[in-house]
Amino acid sequence: MRGKFVTFEGPEGSGKTSVLKAISSELQQRGNQEYILTREPGGNRISEAIRNIILDTRLTEMDARTEALLYAAARRQHLVESVFPALSKGKLVLCDRFVDSSVVYQGAGRGLGEQEILQMNQFATEGLIPDVTFYFDLLPEVGLTRINEHRQNEINRLDQESLAFHNKVHEAYLELAKENPTRIILIDATQTLKKVIDQTIEQLKTKLPDFFN
Amino acid sequence: MRGKFVTFEGPEGSGKTSVLKAISSELQQRGNQEYILTREPGGNRISEAIRNIILDTRLTEMDARTEALLYAAARRQHLVESVFPALSKGKLVLCDRFVDSSVVYQGAGRGLGEQEILQMNQFATEGLIPDVTFYFDLLPEVGLTRINEHRQNEINRLDQESLAFHNKVHEAYLELAKENPTRIILIDATQTLKKVIDQTIEQLKTKLPDFFN
Repeated sequence: MRGKFVTFEGPEGSGKTSVLKAISSELQQRGNQEYILTREPGGNRISEAIRNIILDTRLTEMDARTEALLYAAARRQHLVESVFPALSKGKLVLCDRFVDSSVVYQGAGRGLGEQEILQMNQFATEGLIPDVTFYFDLLPEVGLTRINEHRQNEINRLDQESLAFHNKVHEAYLELAKENPTRIILIDATQTLKKVIDQTIEQLKTKLPDFFN
Repeated sequence: MRGKFVTFEGPEGSGKTSVLKAISSELQQRGNQEYILTREPGGNRISEAIRNIILDTRLTEMDARTEALLYAAARRQHLVESVFPALSKGKLVLCDRFVDSSVVYQGAGRGLGEQEILQMNQFATEGLIPDVTFYFDLLPEVGLTRINEHRQNEINRLDQESLAFHNKVHEAYLELAKENPTRIILIDATQTLKKVIDQTIEQLKTKLPDFFN
């Protein structure tokens, strides 16, 4: 695996998606074609079919562990079809959410256990760990307020979870960042979007100079 | 969990399904209603939807780990909807194949690693281990010959795998039986079907007298 794998984590409303677009623009301006911007399920037909089961709101009987296994299955296929091939070609892979999201949302938020979720996902990833992870930190109250203001009609199922759920997720993200100080870079997402973008790109230039020269 | 969980393992052609039918008849003759006869995916709509993805032969790009995670997801939902409720009501659950099948077919046969498959499946089962497992032992050559003779038009994908694959599966089953001498009862499936059935029911009467009195 000669490329670099960078993941982006944080709650909805943290500006994660805008930052990813800005990084993509920056790379394009520099004429760098050696990157892919992706997110699970990643457009492959198997992961999309799995996702359709997960997101089918009629299937209210779905157990939380079934759901976690389905997410891991979709993750695996996305890795095999998109991420591993790009990494083996030496590319930079920018991925919107990865295992950390499962650990905090399913492990901590839904209470399935962070270590259990991590271990089960290692079967899917064969131990692939991101080279760099950006975590956009935001208090749940702030994130939820932003979501309600900006896209009232797009509130998804996770947004609707209780504030207690989002507080557990937030605590778990902070814990992960503390446990993985080398890999995870915490960005204060209460700052203006411009500052968040600038700090992220500055860090990328320092950590991965080959892709930003 | 007050009930008992009994699983049935072995290659196609080993008489497993006929034995299960015979046990079911035996229980009915005794007027015992406190049992269920089941197999994954078990008829629930989530597991069936997952199974449809696994068995879609157009999806040739499916990775072996993706498939293993999907089987585990279907297994989980079957446990939650069928097995756990029956066990908690004190019933006898007779299940055609369980984790051992994944360990030998995916772990050993496909080479994903027996320990890895076992560990990943523990996320799905929350550590549920059968009280008794019957393993119907048969040399792969014999099983494949039986299949070809008796149901030429029903040969499934696993049957079509090479003999080398089935030899790996056979070795892994024997190893499992050796490692779990208390749980796994090896039945010589080269005997006549009548003998296989009689020996299995005899063992059940000894191991689980409450359900066969």
